[in-house]
Amino acid sequence: MVHDLYHYIGGARVDGTSGRFGDVYNPCTGEVQARLPLASRDEVREAIANAEKGQAEWAAMNPQRRGRILLKFVDLANEHMDELAELLSSEHGKTFADSKGDVQRGLEVVEFSAGAAPHLLKGEFSDSVGTGIDVHSLRKPLGVVAGISPFNFPAMIPLWQAGPALAAGNAFICKPSERDPSVPLRLAELLTEAGLPDGVFNVVNGDKEAVDALIEDPRVKAIGFVGSTPIAQAIYAGAAAHGKRAQCFGGAKNHMVILADADLDMAADALIGAGYGSAGERCMAISVAVPVGEETADALVAKLQERIKGLRVGASMDKDVDFGPVVAASAKERIEGYIAKGAEEGAELLVDGRGHTVDGYEGGFWVGPTLFDRVTQEMSIYREEIFGPVLSVVRAADYDEALRLCSEHEFGNGVAIFTRDGDAARDFASRVEVGMVGVNVPIPVPIAYYTFGGWKASGFGDLNQHGPDAFRFFTKTKTVTSRWPSGVRQGASFVMPAGS
Amino acid sequence: MVHDLYHYIGGARVDGTSGRFGDVYNPCTGEVQARLPLASRDEVREAIANAEKGQAEWAAMNPQRRGRILLKFVDLANEHMDELAELLSSEHGKTFADSKGDVQRGLEVVEFSAGAAPHLLKGEFSDSVGTGIDVHSLRKPLGVVAGISPFNFPAMIPLWQAGPALAAGNAFICKPSERDPSVPLRLAELLTEAGLPDGVFNVVNGDKEAVDALIEDPRVKAIGFVGSTPIAQAIYAGAAAHGKRAQCFGGAKNHMVILADADLDMAADALIGAGYGSAGERCMAISVAVPVGEETADALVAKLQERIKGLRVGASMDKDVDFGPVVAASAKERIEGYIAKGAEEGAELLVDGRGHTVDGYEGGFWVGPTLFDRVTQEMSIYREEIFGPVLSVVRAADYDEALRLCSEHEFGNGVAIFTRDGDAARDFASRVEVGMVGVNVPIPVPIAYYTFGGWKASGFGDLNQHGPDAFRFFTKTKTVTSRWPSGVRQGASFVMPAGS
Amino acid sequence: MVHDLYHYIGGARVDGTSGRFGDVYNPCTGEVQARLPLASRDEVREAIANAEKGQAEWAAMNPQRRGRILLKFVDLANEHMDELAELLSSEHGKTFADSKGDVQRGLEVVEFSAGAAPHLLKGEFSDSVGTGIDVHSLRKPLGVVAGISPFNFPAMIPLWQAGPALAAGNAFICKPSERDPSVPLRLAELLTEAGLPDGVFNVVNGDKEAVDALIEDPRVKAIGFVGSTPIAQAIYAGAAAHGKRAQCFGGAKNHMVILADADLDMAADALIGAGYGSAGERCMAISVAVPVGEETADALVAKLQERIKGLRVGASMDKDVDFGPVVAASAKERIEGYIAKGAEEGAELLVDGRGHTVDGYEGGFWVGPTLFDRVTQEMSIYREEIFGPVLSVVRAADYDEALRLCSEHEFGNGVAIFTRDGDAARDFASRVEVGMVGVNVPIPVPIAYYTFGGWKASGFGDLNQHGPDAFRFFTKTKTVTSRWPSGVRQGASFVMPAGS
Amino acid sequence: MVHDLYHYIGGARVDGTSGRFGDVYNPCTGEVQARLPLASRDEVREAIANAEKGQAEWAAMNPQRRGRILLKFVDLANEHMDELAELLSSEHGKTFADSKGDVQRGLEVVEFSAGAAPHLLKGEFSDSVGTGIDVHSLRKPLGVVAGISPFNFPAMIPLWQAGPALAAGNAFICKPSERDPSVPLRLAELLTEAGLPDGVFNVVNGDKEAVDALIEDPRVKAIGFVGSTPIAQAIYAGAAAHGKRAQCFGGAKNHMVILADADLDMAADALIGAGYGSAGERCMAISVAVPVGEETADALVAKLQERIKGLRVGASMDKDVDFGPVVAASAKERIEGYIAKGAEEGAELLVDGRGHTVDGYEGGFWVGPTLFDRVTQEMSIYREEIFGPVLSVVRAADYDEALRLCSEHEFGNGVAIFTRDGDAARDFASRVEVGMVGVNVPIPVPIAYYTFGGWKASGFGDLNQHGPDAFRFFTKTKTVTSRWPSGVRQGASFVMPAGS
Repeated sequence: MVHDLYHYIGGARVDGTSGRFGDVYNPCTGEVQARLPLASRDEVREAIANAEKGQAEWAAMNPQRRGRILLKFVDLANEHMDELAELLSSEHGKTFADSKGDVQRGLEVVEFSAGAAPHLLKGEFSDSVGTGIDVHSLRKPLGVVAGISPFNFPAMIPLWQAGPALAAGNAFICKPSERDPSVPLRLAELLTEAGLPDGVFNVVNGDKEAVDALIEDPRVKAIGFVGSTPIAQAIYAGAAAHGKRAQCFGGAKNHMVILADADLDMAADALIGAGYGSAGERCMAISVAVPVGEETADALVAKLQERIKGLRVGASMDKDVDFGPVVAASAKERIEGYIAKGAEEGAELLVDGRGHTVDGYEGGFWVGPTLFDRVTQEMSIYREEIFGPVLSVVRAADYDEALRLCSEHEFGNGVAIFTRDGDAARDFASRVEVGMVGVNVPIPVPIAYYTFGGWKASGFGDLNQHGPDAFRFFTKTKTVTSRWPSGVRQGASFVMPAGS
Repeated sequence: MVHDLYHYIGGARVDGTSGRFGDVYNPCTGEVQARLPLASRDEVREAIANAEKGQAEWAAMNPQRRGRILLKFVDLANEHMDELAELLSSEHGKTFADSKGDVQRGLEVVEFSAGAAPHLLKGEFSDSVGTGIDVHSLRKPLGVVAGISPFNFPAMIPLWQAGPALAAGNAFICKPSERDPSVPLRLAELLTEAGLPDGVFNVVNGDKEAVDALIEDPRVKAIGFVGSTPIAQAIYAGAAAHGKRAQCFGGAKNHMVILADADLDMAADALIGAGYGSAGERCMAISVAVPVGEETADALVAKLQERIKGLRVGASMDKDVDFGPVVAASAKERIEGYIAKGAEEGAELLVDGRGHTVDGYEGGFWVGPTLFDRVTQEMSIYREEIFGPVLSVVRAADYDEALRLCSEHEFGNGVAIFTRDGDAARDFASRVEVGMVGVNVPIPVPIAYYTFGGWKASGFGDLNQHGPDAFRFFTKTKTVTSRWPSGVRQGASFVMPAGS
Repeated sequence: MVHDLYHYIGGARVDGTSGRFGDVYNPCTGEVQARLPLASRDEVREAIANAEKGQAEWAAMNPQRRGRILLKFVDLANEHMDELAELLSSEHGKTFADSKGDVQRGLEVVEFSAGAAPHLLKGEFSDSVGTGIDVHSLRKPLGVVAGISPFNFPAMIPLWQAGPALAAGNAFICKPSERDPSVPLRLAELLTEAGLPDGVFNVVNGDKEAVDALIEDPRVKAIGFVGSTPIAQAIYAGAAAHGKRAQCFGGAKNHMVILADADLDMAADALIGAGYGSAGERCMAISVAVPVGEETADALVAKLQERIKGLRVGASMDKDVDFGPVVAASAKERIEGYIAKGAEEGAELLVDGRGHTVDGYEGGFWVGPTLFDRVTQEMSIYREEIFGPVLSVVRAADYDEALRLCSEHEFGNGVAIFTRDGDAARDFASRVEVGMVGVNVPIPVPIAYYTFGGWKASGFGDLNQHGPDAFRFFTKTKTVTSRWPSGVRQGASFVMPAGS
Repeated sequence: MVHDLYHYIGGARVDGTSGRFGDVYNPCTGEVQARLPLASRDEVREAIANAEKGQAEWAAMNPQRRGRILLKFVDLANEHMDELAELLSSEHGKTFADSKGDVQRGLEVVEFSAGAAPHLLKGEFSDSVGTGIDVHSLRKPLGVVAGISPFNFPAMIPLWQAGPALAAGNAFICKPSERDPSVPLRLAELLTEAGLPDGVFNVVNGDKEAVDALIEDPRVKAIGFVGSTPIAQAIYAGAAAHGKRAQCFGGAKNHMVILADADLDMAADALIGAGYGSAGERCMAISVAVPVGEETADALVAKLQERIKGLRVGASMDKDVDFGPVVAASAKERIEGYIAKGAEEGAELLVDGRGHTVDGYEGGFWVGPTLFDRVTQEMSIYREEIFGPVLSVVRAADYDEALRLCSEHEFGNGVAIFTRDGDAARDFASRVEVGMVGVNVPIPVPIAYYTFGGWKASGFGDLNQHGPDAFRFFTKTKTVTSRWPSGVRQGASFVMPAGS
């Protein structure tokens, strides 16, 4: 049974009126399960108008009161965790456990934003910078802001964007991925239930038309985006062309360097989790392993092959499964294309995930774990983001080559080094040209009170996502310089007009 | 029926074993309602030992997890708000509404401390301060810390001390006032219910012996105190003599300056609330009004007299009452003594609160609202803290005299100015030698994310109570400078011993 | 005698090779005094290559050592103050005193940036965010960055951009205005003399071709711009289209609100200085006076007319002069066009500055002080930036209308209110939709340790110029998450390879 | 020839009037070279009165102007570096190179304090914490503050104390060690030459009487002390007993742990420098080496013995010398007593520095490098601070024992670990109960923009020396809460009195 989805505007579900729809699939079965209305420009404008109204009320609350509503929402979302995770899995395909993590990592940012806002929104004050002259600064919310989020973290990314935006007093318009919009819609309801004023958090479903409408409308003051690099760059440029601020995060090709002294079992376990977890559809997934030295490489590859044998790929709600289907038929096709190309380009295809099937889910978008060895810098499977369960081993002769590989890649999102050596770890962390670094940590997503952002083609803008940076991104600074003529101190008086 | 109270140690009620007891009164009836065990040195040491055990587990939790437990406590305390407020009123005598405010202001600090801790506990990091050399700093909890709190805010002060102390990872020992210990005991139970590990928050009832035991024990690393100035100073000195840090807040004589251009009705209303509310038993109460110019003074005094006529003094739980009894028979006696002395010293006693009675509560510790005019700088009712519903008017000839009065008084806790004039307000706020200043705000208690602290004889120590300062007070800084010899980068290897 | 100017690249004067030149005038005489080489794309690329080399050495110095070189430069610039100011006046036309202020305000930012860099470049460190897991962040310089600066502050703006950029470890390319490039060229020499490594500060002269080359080159990581709004917006969009960060500051129409209770003489003096100083060619000049109430307006206008009579317009180096010529013949033409248009549109032209002449300087670009009364919101002289010595009086009926005028104007750079009333000033400062606010301060340029930035069409980007914001703009954040496998603690050993 | 020294008060040399004098020796010759006047209580009070006058003028300057004077002083001191270092060596006995380092490390703190003050003195500002209510905070200087400094860093410690104290707007009274007061006196002259107003920096020479006078005088608001632990504790207690804030730093027994995987040559070199440099008279000297494992210990001890053979002990101005004499005959006696006691207690005395002589300097206070092996936790040479060129080796069986030794020692000033292992270094830095930690850095004195402070018996107070903490220590916080009655916005007006 295909059901109809909707938008969430002004505190209520709103049906689409554009007459245009998208299909929402169940990736485990390959069947369409819902129709998604795609908003027209006018529908987007209507949502913006609603948001503008809601924002005035919301900004007038002090940050502690706003925080209490957001923390109430966190409580509600935790109560509904299983429901949210199941909904998420049904549209995205990741395992139930992964889906809970998706929601949880999002809630952590809301929680931090709510609690730290009174402090992070403070301005500065300087007394007597000159005789009788004071200066102080204020942080004011921007007004209406928007977030455009990717299919791969349908709960986490909207909450990373909205958490600090709302805590700072803005109204927020969420444009979720067309593939898995149901969780954001449900989160919107829980926000309303928690007491968020109507219009402060809205979900507008749509495609390029909706995105363009958000970018072009002068009432939208800032855009947050997470997705592929070409779109990230286009939205960054589009927002700027319309005079607004943007932070846009794109693709990745995260390397993991394994030195000879690493705990190789720890490294192999980490690679399996970071390379294949969530079918490799994470912007912080490891897609390139860089063992240093042939001996290390041989040992590592052997350990990987052994572990891959034990991996179970299957339906999201099956508790014994390590990862589920990829999100769409087109994704499966693209990934399988890369596997073919890698083999053609001369990489050693040690494990081939093409043609994977799961009993009872014959229509699902399955790709099994795939392992390439002896991948080189020129191959397209090395240069491009595959976004699937495909791990490439690039053998480096020494540390310097490993560091150079990581630093020279077009993308600079995440990177990891596995070693016991303080010197190597410190040198790597200080010098590598990548924004987020793990030392014996394969997926170094910064915790909620630090900030998320890649370098080079992985991130556009000057302020990172969540953490203290986000409060700077979602506010504007006003600076006031004051001095006063003397009056009452000298005996002047003050007269109220008659009748007032 | 007199009931027996107890301590709260290691997550449970613990009966006193010293054989020494104090009486807890109901100030509305003047009757003893409970017996309070007074801890021996050994009982205090036992509590410290318990706290030391609990602290290790608590400090090992990350600040987000600690914060969730503290926020759960805030929720529980809000659910039990009426119960807590009634309990508070029954021992302190303040009105039910005031008691709710007492709890609420305390909870705000816990809430802020919980939410902002992950940020406020961050250290700093500098990369390459020299070639290959990094420096970073960490904030570590102190271990076991203690708070000694006054009768006048039996919920707020313990929570102001414990909120940041706990959020920073310390265990806390609360030594409440002997007059109204029941609310802290109940808060301890709610903290346990919220999931706080046993031993992390303890209540030890007692008198000087317990206080001395806390000061002398080397396992107690910091002392927070709020009370009268002589005790504040003695505890500050005692803690230092035992090598520990302390922040000790003492008495007050808060002035309110009223300029000719002030909104006089607003000022008179403010004076009535700030002077007589909670029977004047607040360290931020206004006890001195300083109208500037005879005309202003005459008009103000007239308005005060008129408003005082309407004040209702009666039983705490009576909703129509403006303020309740003072806390003890000795307090009533002391206050009435000051009223007599003020009259003797030549002040004009415009309203005399002595001999106030309330039907049905003949044994209560009643003092009615009292107003003196033409008080001068030399009188004891001006120089000393009365801590009762007694307001003194000191007439200043001009602004400069008013500023000087406020700045020269021994105490420097709070102060207010009422004016419309930006220049006068700015000059006053910048120059007055007082720690907390209100501009048209009579009781300028800083909000939870700022910090509380008076100057001169009103505060001892270099860091204020609650807000960011408290995180500095309840942590110690460790600074690490690192560099590394090169090894693995040059091809050195690492060998695990056989069998490990 | 027309002399030839040059670029400053790699620590030395470099002649232009493009064959294209611009003219540099003396605005007092109207004569061409120098030929300015306009860089080709290749010359810009050469400068970038030089900067890239210099940056590596500069970034490897610690911030204290960098700071010492910058402070040495400040000392040198102060020693050469008169020379710099005379050079500045000769190309810009502002008075010698104004030119000294131009240099001085720039040096203050260099001084602050140098001294505060070690602190403002710190990252954060959190110990044990999970068991055995630490997180820390680092601030790294971007590499090569560029600043494009306007004619009106040829010393201040380049130094506002370069001060924090250099202090943070970047190399800087300055593209000055074609009208007055000589001061930046001289500052570059003084930086070299102070010990700045070659290539770290470069001056590339040019026009749109040079600007485009900077925007398009992937080695330039950030662009700072100050100028007119259309160009600011275009550069902001262009930089974003090339994936880089930008902060672009544009035009202004700064209002000054005068309430009935203001000190009217103070207000009139302020208006004369802020409206006509530097011939109105300041982005923080007041161009609109908004007296509230007809009585206030009449009195103010009378005081302005009286003061305007005494204004002296003449040659920059004449010490008795209040302001000099405008910068160019085209500027004179544009301003006189606005004066004509204002009169046509129905504004009352009380003082007409057209046709102003100065004996002995008949060819200079003179415009006298001009005053319009009864200007309305629809007139082009109100809506558009004139950038000349033209002051418009818009009469507001009440405070709310005055606030609305300031908030609704397309530009939101600076604004001022003159009043004695704390309430009005506070309400205005909190609510007005303008980025920099003065309370009885006509030109509220934030001091060096605060940050400069307008709102709405006056500023594009999310981080302000100079102050702490600039350190965030000119650095990128790297976040490191670490944990370690146990080894040596369990007795493992470490072997260096033979012969190493 | 014995010359007479003096005080420096109110911007000028002032002769002593108490009639009491101390002797200043030349430790290389053992001869008295100067007579030092010891101030009476009255002389101290006179200095305080002078300071109070100077402070008002100094505090009225904005922090940028104050900073310029302090930076001018840094320039002057650098110009006089050789003169200062020679003077320092002549009274202290450390080598000329060490003396330059002493001055240099002090100047770095002055430099940082001057440059960062405008930022570090900022308060906070929050707009609309309730309807129409703002809160802001200010940092105000304390007034007159004092620093009591030890003989071992006669330039560095006074400058560490005075740098931030002066930058924050206080006046400072320096009470130097009686052994080497000439450098502080010279620094005072250079401060005056740099433009510091008279009375803002004073040097009062004296003994316990002067110290007591500073502690007891209510006009002195804060005391900084560095010296031995018993005096630190006494001054901390004494300051508190007089109601003032204090930060008092005491003795040390700094351990260096050497793991099996350390670079042993690097470790041995570090131990020689950190153990014997400046004759071991540094509070951050290493006095205990803790090799882990017998093999490591044997190898380390062999390397130490070899290196000690090459050490040259001789006259301070001799460029080939590694360290000079100890500061006094009594110091020599104390150290030699410890050496005897260590041998008696059963430690293996591998190198005995007693009886060291230097040709031509027969009267000097010489102690040669001394090395004990197999020292145990119970021995007095382990438990107590020797403050001489005596290094003790305590052999630990494993990492845990080494960590425990460092953590359990009464002192907790500095500590170091030498290892290549990231895990061991991280675990040690996080867990060791010591305030300043070096990872492969033997003397981890925090750089100027971090803060100096030991734990346990090594430091008393809650704020560290220099860096951001010092600005909190040397200022007091004022918090202002404001709201305004409406007036002028509603048409009220303002009347200046006739004739004003």
